[in-house]
Amino acid sequence: MVGHNLKVVETCPQTQARAGVLSTPHGVMSTPLFVPVGSQGAVKTLTPDELKTIGVKMVLGNTYHLYLRPGIEIIESLGGLHRFMSWDGPILTDSGGYQVFSLASLRQISDEGVRFRSHIDGSEHFFTPERVIQLQERLGSDIIMPLDECPPYSHDAMVIRKAMERTHRWAERSKRSHRHHDQDLYGIVQGGTFAELRRESASFLTSLGFPGYAIGGLSLGEPKELTLATMEETIAYLPKDKPRYVMGVGSPEDIFEGVARGVDIFDSALPTRTARNGSLFTVWGRCDIQNARYKDLDEPVDPGCDCYTCHTFSVAYLHHLFKSKELLAYRLATIHNLHFILNLMEQIRQAIMVDSFVTLKDNFLANYQTTDEEARLTQKQKWLQRFS
Amino acid sequence: MVGHNLKVVETCPQTQARAGVLSTPHGVMSTPLFVPVGSQGAVKTLTPDELKTIGVKMVLGNTYHLYLRPGIEIIESLGGLHRFMSWDGPILTDSGGYQVFSLASLRQISDEGVRFRSHIDGSEHFFTPERVIQLQERLGSDIIMPLDECPPYSHDAMVIRKAMERTHRWAERSKRSHRHHDQDLYGIVQGGTFAELRRESASFLTSLGFPGYAIGGLSLGEPKELTLATMEETIAYLPKDKPRYVMGVGSPEDIFEGVARGVDIFDSALPTRTARNGSLFTVWGRCDIQNARYKDLDEPVDPGCDCYTCHTFSVAYLHHLFKSKELLAYRLATIHNLHFILNLMEQIRQAIMVDSFVTLKDNFLANYQTTDEEARLTQKQKWLQRFS
Repeated sequence: MVGHNLKVVETCPQTQARAGVLSTPHGVMSTPLFVPVGSQGAVKTLTPDELKTIGVKMVLGNTYHLYLRPGIEIIESLGGLHRFMSWDGPILTDSGGYQVFSLASLRQISDEGVRFRSHIDGSEHFFTPERVIQLQERLGSDIIMPLDECPPYSHDAMVIRKAMERTHRWAERSKRSHRHHDQDLYGIVQGGTFAELRRESASFLTSLGFPGYAIGGLSLGEPKELTLATMEETIAYLPKDKPRYVMGVGSPEDIFEGVARGVDIFDSALPTRTARNGSLFTVWGRCDIQNARYKDLDEPVDPGCDCYTCHTFSVAYLHHLFKSKELLAYRLATIHNLHFILNLMEQIRQAIMVDSFVTLKDNFLANYQTTDEEARLTQKQKWLQRFS
Repeated sequence: MVGHNLKVVETCPQTQARAGVLSTPHGVMSTPLFVPVGSQGAVKTLTPDELKTIGVKMVLGNTYHLYLRPGIEIIESLGGLHRFMSWDGPILTDSGGYQVFSLASLRQISDEGVRFRSHIDGSEHFFTPERVIQLQERLGSDIIMPLDECPPYSHDAMVIRKAMERTHRWAERSKRSHRHHDQDLYGIVQGGTFAELRRESASFLTSLGFPGYAIGGLSLGEPKELTLATMEETIAYLPKDKPRYVMGVGSPEDIFEGVARGVDIFDSALPTRTARNGSLFTVWGRCDIQNARYKDLDEPVDPGCDCYTCHTFSVAYLHHLFKSKELLAYRLATIHNLHFILNLMEQIRQAIMVDSFVTLKDNFLANYQTTDEEARLTQKQKWLQRFS
C-alpha cells in the first residue's frame, strides 16, 4: 500500500454520508462514486470515449469472466487490462467469487479453494485465494478483491457463519500472497443479514488491516430494510479513514440510502442492464420505454437530463428503436441511465459539501417512485435464477 | 424539380468514371457517393454524430419498413424523418418495392398495385404507386423512389419483360402523382440481365424525364460478369447529365467496377451487415475477426486505417468482443467497415479529379482478395432465402 487511499473531505452532520477523494495509480476520483460494470472488458454497448464523456471515472472488470475468456495470458501479453480495453482510468476487478457461485456449475468448495466448470464450455478450473490475487496482479487493475465464499441469501446462521469463516481464512491468505502493492487489495465483509456475524466479520478484517473494505453478500433477494440495516451495522465496525464499497448495489434509491449510511463506492449492473431492457431512469422513477403510451411522445426521456440521448432524440424514436430491436436502442438507453446515475452521484457529492445532502435525498425520493417491494423481489429472484 | 441535381466536374479519360456534385435540399455531396442503409430510421448500431464523423453524407431509409413501424403518421407528427432520426443531412428513401417482394408474404400483384402481409404482424396492406409517393412526401426525404416490380433473378425474358412493363406504367403514375417537387423522384430501370430489355427500359424512362435514374434488379444472385455487363449496357442509354444510382451494390470491388462504368451513387447493406458478422474490410480483402489466429494479435484491423476502431483497439480485443457477443463488437466493426468504404469513395473521387482512377483501381484490386465467385453466390443465395 503506497498511500492510495481515501481522504474524507466533508461529512454530513445529520447522516453518515461523507464526501472524499480516492487515489489510485490510474487516477484520483471524488466519492461517493458509482462504478459501472464491464465484466468482460467492456461496459456493454459503450466505448471508453463515451464512458469519459458520461463522467465515468472507474470501471469494474471481472476476474472470472476475463480468466475464462479471452484468458489472463492474452490480456497480459497485450499489456494488461487497461491497454487491452483502451481504458486509461482506474479499474477495479472483482475476484470472480460471486460468479463462481452464481454462473459456474459443479462447484466443489474446500478450504483449499473452489473447483468449478466454465459456464462457457464446461471446462474444469480451480481457483485458490492465492491464484485469484495473482490473476488480478497480471490484469494490472488498480483495486483488487480477494476470493470469498458467497452463499445465497439464507436464514440459516450456521451456513452463513461457515462461509464467513472460510472467507476470513481466504482473506488472510490473499493478503499474504499479495505482491504488487501499487494495487489496493480490499477486504470483503460477509455474514449475511446477521448483525452479529457482520460485526464479527468487520472486526476481523479490520484487525488484518486492508486499504479498503467491501460489503459483500447483499442484494441477494433479501428484503430491502434488511439490506440497509445490514449495511449500517457493518459500517459501524469499519474504520472511518478507509473506503467502504458496497458490492452490487446501484439503484438511485439504494445509492441514497447507502450514502446516508457511509458508503463511498457502489458498483452495479442495474443501470446498464435495465437500460437494455428498455427501463429508463427519470426523476419520477423508471419508465418502460416500450409502453404504447410513448409511441408518439415528442419529448426527451427526462426533460431535465442533458445526456446525448435526451439531447438528441424523442421518447417516440427510442420507443421505435426498442420495438424494432435496433442495436442503437440499447446504446442510447445505456448512455441515458449511466448519465443519470453519474449525474446523481455528482449532485450527492455537491450536496454533502454544502450540508444539503438530507434535503437532496428527501426531495429526490419524494418524486422518485421506486419499484414496489414485491415486484422488486420477484424481478430479483428471476434475475438470480437465470444463472442457477 | 428545382435544380437539385448532378453537376459533373471531371470525367476519366480511360473509363466512364466521373466525379461530380449532387445537390439536395438538405445538402450538397460529392460523387461517386456511397449511401449506408438505415432502413428503420437508424444505420444499425450508429448515432447520427458517428455517421458524420465517419464522413457519411446521405443515408437511406425504407418506406416499407417505416410505414409498418412506427407508421408514417407518427414520423410525420414528429416533424418528418429527418427530425425523427435526428439526421439533418440528405435522406434517400427506397419505395419498399423490393421489400414487399422479398420480406412480405401473400403478395397479390395487379396493375393497380400490390397487396401484401406485414412480415411483422401479418396485417394486410395495399401499396399503389401513388400511395408510395405520398408516403415518401410525408417522410420528407430528399430523394424518393417509385414503386417497382422486383422479380427474382430469372432466365425467362417474358417474366422479366412483364415486370418491366408494369414498372414503366407505375413510373408514369408515380411521376404524375408527385407533388412535392423539392424532393427528387428518380426513375428505376428494370429488365433483369437482358441487354435488350435494359435498353428499352432506360430509353422509356429517359423519355419520361426524371432528375435521376436508378438501376434496379441487380445483385440478385446473378454471376458478377452479368451484373457488370448489365450496368454498362443500361448506363449507355441514360442521360450523361443525370445521376445514376445502382441499388444494392456496395462491395469495394463492385464499387470500383460500377464507378468505371459511370455510376454516381451506390447503396448497400453489405458493409454494415458483414461488419455485424465479424467480416472486416482490409486492403487485402475481408478478414473474419473470429478466426482463432486473431486471438492475440496486437495490431489494428487495417494498419493504414484511421477510423476510431483501428485507432483505439487491437484485433485481439475485437476478436474477444465478438467471441463474447458484446454489443460493442458490432458497433466497432460497423464503424470500421463504413469508414473503409467512405474513405475508398474519397480516394476514388480524388483519383478521378487527377486522372489516376485506373491506377487506383488496378492497385486496389491487385491487393484486395475478393470472395471467390462460388462462395459469393452461395452466401448471396443464403441471404436472399432468409426472407423468401
